[in-house]
Amino acid sequence: MTDSGKEKSASRRGFLAAAGAGAALAAGLGKAGAQGAKPDPLITDIQDWNRYLGDGVADRPYGKPSAFEKNVVRRDVEWLTASRQSSVNFTPLHALDGIITPNGLCFERHHGGIAEIAPDKHRLMVHGLVEKSLVFSLEDLKRFPGRMNRVFFLECAANSGMEWRGAQLNGCQFTHGMVHNVMYTGIPLRAVLEEAGLRTNAKWLLAEGADASLMTRSIPMEKALKDAMLGWGMNGEALRPEQGYPLRLVVPGWEGNMWIKWLRRLEVGDEPWQQREETSKYTDLLADGRSRRFTFIMDAKSVVTNPSPQAPMLAKGPNVLSGLAWSGRGAITRVDVSIDGGKNWQTARIDGPVLPMSLTRFYVDFDWNGSDLLIQSRAMDETGYVQPTKDELRKARGVNSIYHNNGIQTWHVKANGETENVEVL
Amino acid sequence: MTDSGKEKSASRRGFLAAAGAGAALAAGLGKAGAQGAKPDPLITDIQDWNRYLGDGVADRPYGKPSAFEKNVVRRDVEWLTASRQSSVNFTPLHALDGIITPNGLCFERHHGGIAEIAPDKHRLMVHGLVEKSLVFSLEDLKRFPGRMNRVFFLECAANSGMEWRGAQLNGCQFTHGMVHNVMYTGIPLRAVLEEAGLRTNAKWLLAEGADASLMTRSIPMEKALKDAMLGWGMNGEALRPEQGYPLRLVVPGWEGNMWIKWLRRLEVGDEPWQQREETSKYTDLLADGRSRRFTFIMDAKSVVTNPSPQAPMLAKGPNVLSGLAWSGRGAITRVDVSIDGGKNWQTARIDGPVLPMSLTRFYVDFDWNGSDLLIQSRAMDETGYVQPTKDELRKARGVNSIYHNNGIQTWHVKANGETENVEVL
Repeated sequence: MTDSGKEKSASRRGFLAAAGAGAALAAGLGKAGAQGAKPDPLITDIQDWNRYLGDGVADRPYGKPSAFEKNVVRRDVEWLTASRQSSVNFTPLHALDGIITPNGLCFERHHGGIAEIAPDKHRLMVHGLVEKSLVFSLEDLKRFPGRMNRVFFLECAANSGMEWRGAQLNGCQFTHGMVHNVMYTGIPLRAVLEEAGLRTNAKWLLAEGADASLMTRSIPMEKALKDAMLGWGMNGEALRPEQGYPLRLVVPGWEGNMWIKWLRRLEVGDEPWQQREETSKYTDLLADGRSRRFTFIMDAKSVVTNPSPQAPMLAKGPNVLSGLAWSGRGAITRVDVSIDGGKNWQTARIDGPVLPMSLTRFYVDFDWNGSDLLIQSRAMDETGYVQPTKDELRKARGVNSIYHNNGIQTWHVKANGETENVEVL
Repeated sequence: MTDSGKEKSASRRGFLAAAGAGAALAAGLGKAGAQGAKPDPLITDIQDWNRYLGDGVADRPYGKPSAFEKNVVRRDVEWLTASRQSSVNFTPLHALDGIITPNGLCFERHHGGIAEIAPDKHRLMVHGLVEKSLVFSLEDLKRFPGRMNRVFFLECAANSGMEWRGAQLNGCQFTHGMVHNVMYTGIPLRAVLEEAGLRTNAKWLLAEGADASLMTRSIPMEKALKDAMLGWGMNGEALRPEQGYPLRLVVPGWEGNMWIKWLRRLEVGDEPWQQREETSKYTDLLADGRSRRFTFIMDAKSVVTNPSPQAPMLAKGPNVLSGLAWSGRGAITRVDVSIDGGKNWQTARIDGPVLPMSLTRFYVDFDWNGSDLLIQSRAMDETGYVQPTKDELRKARGVNSIYHNNGIQTWHVKANGETENVEVL
């Protein structure tokens, strides 16, 4: 709309009023630019791009985003970790829409940096309580029957972890950005385990990565056989190096740390291994000093991505509130949104594919009158689970842990549109 | 698998036999690498990546594919067009899986190069047979109610066009790679047309791009109101420059040329405009010199992506045949595959989301005994339409046109695994 239109944009139809400008443009536009005539300044300001030949097709064999989108990137928090190799960065949720995370923007969490692996030399070994130890190349795995493609969210157990003790980080990229959602290509993990032949006491699986941290996690055999995958593709192409190229474990709905990247070894056993990354780390310490054991599932959670601190409200009148919901227990069935800090709730409009253990997009179309808002969202899943408040979580578990914070998030929208991370007590 | 395993890989279980190597590795692996001991050569050859710290998280704010995937890129055919600005490149279908095309690999077709547009200055004008001419900024459009996310294929009308006269290009990237499939974010086109207010004689819409070619196409109002979108997002992020950043028309199931990129103008009228790009181009010339008029819909089509000339058969024994099917008339209901040039057919396994007017992935798990194959696929859609042979198309329409070739494709797999584009007559 024109600037004059902006001034009087309080009503839904008002903000779309283009006054006389539309008609004037209609007369002046057409093919004027292409014919080389000096364009009217108003038109130039709007669109004179057509006067120049652009880049051709061979210039970008693998395309990149527009230079105008240079701020839509993964970001890290410098003080959070001592080294870059054992660190994390965050998906820019506030700048994305729909449910697919572009591969280049999927958050990273490494414990020993990104392993650089030649795919033709990589091997996956299966051994332990099996009839026959096996070693597979990537090409072997690609010859298995039953190849499949599934969209799943992957969330770090520590996502929103800094918020346990109160509002800390100002932006949903930082509070909730350790999650991404892509379509994986691979085969059922079950297929290779059955090929090796499980012994009767095969109850647990140890998965080991080929990175410098030798990341290892114990996985119950029941989950391994149910819906876990060996994945080599994401969103159509090969896994990205930082996501475990050429092979990772896909453990739908369970904490991201278990989705072993650069997967090289699967050992079958009869009990959990109690490795470092499942005892001293990735275990939730309770207030009384005991630990919650085996907190694998990521419970239902949601966040409003727009508005949020990095994407403030821009104007009064019609606005689209948008957000994401997900659950490790299945499909999202409903998302409620509050604009008054949880006193009143309305049910959001869910749009796009609703898939089990996948990010789910919701919207609320509303008119903003310029008053302060306390925006919250609350997800429900097909098991009937309802996303709790942070206080409910703290009462149950204390504040020692940095893991599994799926509490309701609050954004404070001020009259000038600025939006802040706050706590509603 | 080990090399010795490869030798005896005729049977399904045979190719997975790792002989004694598995057990030897089981003993030698574990944490040996991390402890700095000189690894056994066999183990080194397999995986010594864990001995080195990898790159940290801040090194790739917008991630890229592995260097080992450098051949998975869009490619063009140099002799096909006189200039790079009015040219085409092709999606590497043979190297992808699932149904989502990564944004960086979506084929390009430009008529005046890639317009470079500042999103905050871009405007969309709606005028003509409307109650009120309107001009929208991108932010205006993002404030409309009813935002939506939908996965659609986009296929150039000239996809497979070179094949009308016989097998020409050796690779499905070149024969079928003018198609991609992403999730679009935007609003219904209907919303802005209703905001402007359509007059009773509003029967057609002219869409104009802001590129140097001022691409313009006439679109029936019925389609515009039914399911067309104004799209600003693809696969979660902003449109890529080469796909019309910051705004494009989305015309589900219809030929790609109508999905006007860099969309700046929508004129409402009572008849088609008969612009250059819908008369001298993008119109199908029949054998008798007359033209088929208004060939907007992309009929059901499919192609086997693996094996194919760029992705030959690697070994006998278990193999996974894979391919894509799509229809502009709705959802794919069935895909049949033949390995003997169309004499016998078997129904393929469709995997993953089956969405209307979206690429759909199919597989056939089979054992290859090393004999010659003539591989074909045949798609069927929910209207009952069955993909025809190329000969059936030629009989009906002659060979003057380069558009709308949705005929059955044949790959000849030779005993050594090499695969060629051939015609079965």
